[in-house]
Amino acid sequence: MTSPTEGYVLNQTMLRVKDPTVSVRFYIDVLGMTLLHRLDFPEMRFSLYFLAYLAKGEAAPADLIERGRFIFTRKTTLELTHNWGTETDPTFEAYHNGNSEPRGFGHLGFSVPDVEAACKRFEALGVPFKKRPDEGKMKGLAFITDPDGYWIEILSPKGMEAVLATSSAS
Amino acid sequence: MTSPTEGYVLNQTMLRVKDPTVSVRFYIDVLGMTLLHRLDFPEMRFSLYFLAYLAKGEAAPADLIERGRFIFTRKTTLELTHNWGTETDPTFEAYHNGNSEPRGFGHLGFSVPDVEAACKRFEALGVPFKKRPDEGKMKGLAFITDPDGYWIEILSPKGMEAVLATSSAS
Repeated sequence: MTSPTEGYVLNQTMLRVKDPTVSVRFYIDVLGMTLLHRLDFPEMRFSLYFLAYLAKGEAAPADLIERGRFIFTRKTTLELTHNWGTETDPTFEAYHNGNSEPRGFGHLGFSVPDVEAACKRFEALGVPFKKRPDEGKMKGLAFITDPDGYWIEILSPKGMEAVLATSSAS
Repeated sequence: MTSPTEGYVLNQTMLRVKDPTVSVRFYIDVLGMTLLHRLDFPEMRFSLYFLAYLAKGEAAPADLIERGRFIFTRKTTLELTHNWGTETDPTFEAYHNGNSEPRGFGHLGFSVPDVEAACKRFEALGVPFKKRPDEGKMKGLAFITDPDGYWIEILSPKGMEAVLATSSAS
């Protein structure tokens, strides 16, 4: 019997961003993602930016229908929502990252081959840290923040070994 | 030359949940995910639950190191954090879903083969809707809520064709 959830995919996580120029550059330049597509909704005054990691040689198809299939069936896209005007509005303060009250969303987590090497590069690029790999109780993983202050965990299977060992697993 | 972000993967989205029994069941029973692993941190009084979609015949390895590699290199796991006690604490109200002030995180998006069929099943299961596929400006996609009130978009490539057509793309 086919499962009723056959073919389901966790496709996207959506975060609102104040300035898409800055945020999209961050996810491309610092984290190595690719912008697959941008959608503008002039009537509702917002735009969506879809980012993902592409395999070598992979590219978003030019045809819009095919591109939609490419974006909306894949695992793990990051969807950034820009409500027009926030980037220049002096009364707009910031989006809420969910880690102070009222809490909820915690972070995105990026797996990297080498946490130390990745963090050295982030330092050189001037990326802010919440926690460096050798700080805190959980060694071997780090937290940086994106331009809106959302927390991004930088982790590796190697770095998680210590965390797995100090926790009780079930 | 190798890119400095070679091997990076968007691995996880973390959400805090009030009652993991209820939430884990929701993501398994309603959305068809599999619980890969649970980590307990008794000293810090929290637990982590890692969920993902597995391919047919795929299973989390029993060996802890191999299991770590299996979880922390894959695309798209959902990490649910349970701070012990919230599920029975009468003063704990709810986590914040990011869609009322202060805004930030928006939603998780699940791609499904057939939005109508999926939503019919969700209705039958008593899942709350924020938006049914035929409501609002964007037809062909829906929003349901998880047990903590986090928004979950239900979308399909087919359903997104109309959205793509009504937006200006770039």
